[in-house]
Amino acid sequence: MKPLKEMTHDELSIFYQNAKAEYEACKEKGLKLDMSRGKPGSEQLDLTIDILTILNSAEQCKVDGVDARNYGIVDGLPVCKALFADILSVKPTQVFVGGNSSLNLMYDIISKAYTHGMLHSEKPWSKLDEVKFLCPVPGYDRHFRISEHFGTKLIPIPLNENGPDMDMVEELVKDSAVRGMWCVPKYSNPDGFIYSDETIKRIASLKPAAPDFTIMWDNAYCVHEFDGDFIPFVNIIDECEKYGNPDMVYQFCSTSKITVPGSGVACFSSSEANIDYQRSLITFQTIGYDKMNQLRTVLYLKNREHTIEIMKKHAQILKPKFDAVIEYLDKEIAPLGFARYHKPKGGYFISFNTLEGTATRTIDLAKEAGLVMTPAGSAFPYKHDPDDTNIRIAPSLPSPDELTLATEILCACAKLAAAEKLLG
Amino acid sequence: MKPLKEMTHDELSIFYQNAKAEYEACKEKGLKLDMSRGKPGSEQLDLTIDILTILNSAEQCKVDGVDARNYGIVDGLPVCKALFADILSVKPTQVFVGGNSSLNLMYDIISKAYTHGMLHSEKPWSKLDEVKFLCPVPGYDRHFRISEHFGTKLIPIPLNENGPDMDMVEELVKDSAVRGMWCVPKYSNPDGFIYSDETIKRIASLKPAAPDFTIMWDNAYCVHEFDGDFIPFVNIIDECEKYGNPDMVYQFCSTSKITVPGSGVACFSSSEANIDYQRSLITFQTIGYDKMNQLRTVLYLKNREHTIEIMKKHAQILKPKFDAVIEYLDKEIAPLGFARYHKPKGGYFISFNTLEGTATRTIDLAKEAGLVMTPAGSAFPYKHDPDDTNIRIAPSLPSPDELTLATEILCACAKLAAAEKLLG
Repeated sequence: MKPLKEMTHDELSIFYQNAKAEYEACKEKGLKLDMSRGKPGSEQLDLTIDILTILNSAEQCKVDGVDARNYGIVDGLPVCKALFADILSVKPTQVFVGGNSSLNLMYDIISKAYTHGMLHSEKPWSKLDEVKFLCPVPGYDRHFRISEHFGTKLIPIPLNENGPDMDMVEELVKDSAVRGMWCVPKYSNPDGFIYSDETIKRIASLKPAAPDFTIMWDNAYCVHEFDGDFIPFVNIIDECEKYGNPDMVYQFCSTSKITVPGSGVACFSSSEANIDYQRSLITFQTIGYDKMNQLRTVLYLKNREHTIEIMKKHAQILKPKFDAVIEYLDKEIAPLGFARYHKPKGGYFISFNTLEGTATRTIDLAKEAGLVMTPAGSAFPYKHDPDDTNIRIAPSLPSPDELTLATEILCACAKLAAAEKLLG
Repeated sequence: MKPLKEMTHDELSIFYQNAKAEYEACKEKGLKLDMSRGKPGSEQLDLTIDILTILNSAEQCKVDGVDARNYGIVDGLPVCKALFADILSVKPTQVFVGGNSSLNLMYDIISKAYTHGMLHSEKPWSKLDEVKFLCPVPGYDRHFRISEHFGTKLIPIPLNENGPDMDMVEELVKDSAVRGMWCVPKYSNPDGFIYSDETIKRIASLKPAAPDFTIMWDNAYCVHEFDGDFIPFVNIIDECEKYGNPDMVYQFCSTSKITVPGSGVACFSSSEANIDYQRSLITFQTIGYDKMNQLRTVLYLKNREHTIEIMKKHAQILKPKFDAVIEYLDKEIAPLGFARYHKPKGGYFISFNTLEGTATRTIDLAKEAGLVMTPAGSAFPYKHDPDDTNIRIAPSLPSPDELTLATEILCACAKLAAAEKLLG
């Protein structure tokens, strides 16, 4: 195969005809496939089924000097704080354990910033003339939607394999309207990049003009390797403190992709001052989160070491799925030279950057052929991908057979859309 | 015994000496007791222990065409909507099922009113010059605290055995700054009053000036009889619709005092238009609440009839506790004529109105003697009881033996404080 851009017009016309035929053949199969969301597959759900019955007696409910069945303890059971502290390498006093959703905790913290302000805010963000947030792109759509929902002005920051463009970040935080930044530091969604130590150091040592500049550090994939051993990560709480920014970061994680996706336990980790501040606000919101599920999670996961053992079982299911996609891309797309993608070793996504100006067309073609992909532009603020190039592939949910079919369709669509574009 | 106010000065002096001696005797016992919060007791926790293991297989998780373990379905599993619809006598489409806390849902709805507005709001409440809320008093402290937290101006409304003073409510809602009202319609917290049908009709047919006037209808004790049979309640959603106010009410309930207090399932019920509106906002906040716990709750409670059967078992534990307190009050306090209280048939509290101007002193005395009561004024906006008379008794948590001791202390304190006051 020859790179698309090196083809003569005639070669391209033949390529187009072949791609068209391939696409029509896919379409005729009348399939219904979905590579749009990072949901674990059914094998993964069955892997952890024992968690449902691990908590089964009144005796087990008596922990930390309380009966975990009753009301109270807004910041989480001490045994569950200890579990997350172990997983995240932070102190238990730097952990606040919530309900089943880390996204919910992120939303609540941003919402409270708007209604009541952060610890060092001059006033609630709703009273500020303008609030801007930095968004490494491509990024997690649901992060950006939270900020958009509150009317925040989002500024895209290019993300490369070492993390966000820090020259740009350092420059932008001189604007006091810039109040924070969304980050997925390990296996970034969707690229699967891991921020380098140098990038993390530059983030932790930022000197923002805003007194309440807040890094939303979504460590969603902290122990989520599917290829190779666990890769340790920097303790971002300590790192920020070291550079005189003790209250600048909130770290998030959850067990959703470890135990039961819709029924895991989420937490945030931050300085003790921030934990105290958030507790003082959350006390108005709830008497406490579900401590039975916190306890169930502690009994099941035990500690970081055992959690990593469980993640290896998830890896055995996930790796062949990612491999199937990557192998097909390597074979069918790489030689054509029109697309870029990174082969991640963890996380839930592959970021497929097709020929500029053809992502929307590729995804539309896929939809017509029965394959649902995340809508074009989703990984960008305001759903606007300026280059119309990024396609997020989520290989976790389909079965391996479905995945092969789905990747075949996607590649056929990408080739056809690219050929259409180049032929003009 | 003679009513306190009919006693001569000498009789009162003797009464004071006896009360003082009784109080000192209580204090010397060096007890540590708590009648401050409406927590179920340990027998109640054990009653429902089987819910922990009722959901135990992958097969059970496949309901309503989905695998309940995975992400999604922000407004709750259809089977769980059906359960709450049955309990509340509403349509499943009028139900939104959330997480473990109805208070959290109330907070979230109020918070969203401030950041985004209600369905019929002209603008978010944070952009209004003033927001006022009506608060039947005495009422539930955590309701009032939510409103206070957002800077709402709270207006107390006297509550009698038929519900809030509706003449006053009808007058006040002519002010467009009045945006809503907190209600606990069945077994009001703390009095245990049930709003009369006439009161409910007047509430449903209000003509508020504010287009987004919202009744926060906390049906916390909808099936929570401990004395006698289940008492049916009016369907407030239909009732409001009947009078041309289809979107005026949000009803809340939870299974916290039915299954596991800290790990029940909460819901709100409202018009379909309101459900759609809230879903459109909550979609930014979470991918979905804990569906495993929703499913567990459905398998355990089954339907309203079976839920009421379970409530009868709770009643067997609760009734003797309430009886113990009421019997002691009837014997030791009633003949003295200085206090008012109502004997509830459901709910979690007894509202004890002691001699005006002595509630704070009574509670302080109790604290010194080792008995923790809810702080004076808690049942009022801004924690201010203008008559300093109301004391909320929560008899559910202590054991029967502890309860007898606690009531003895409370009565000794109330008598002593009353005598001190009358002696000047």
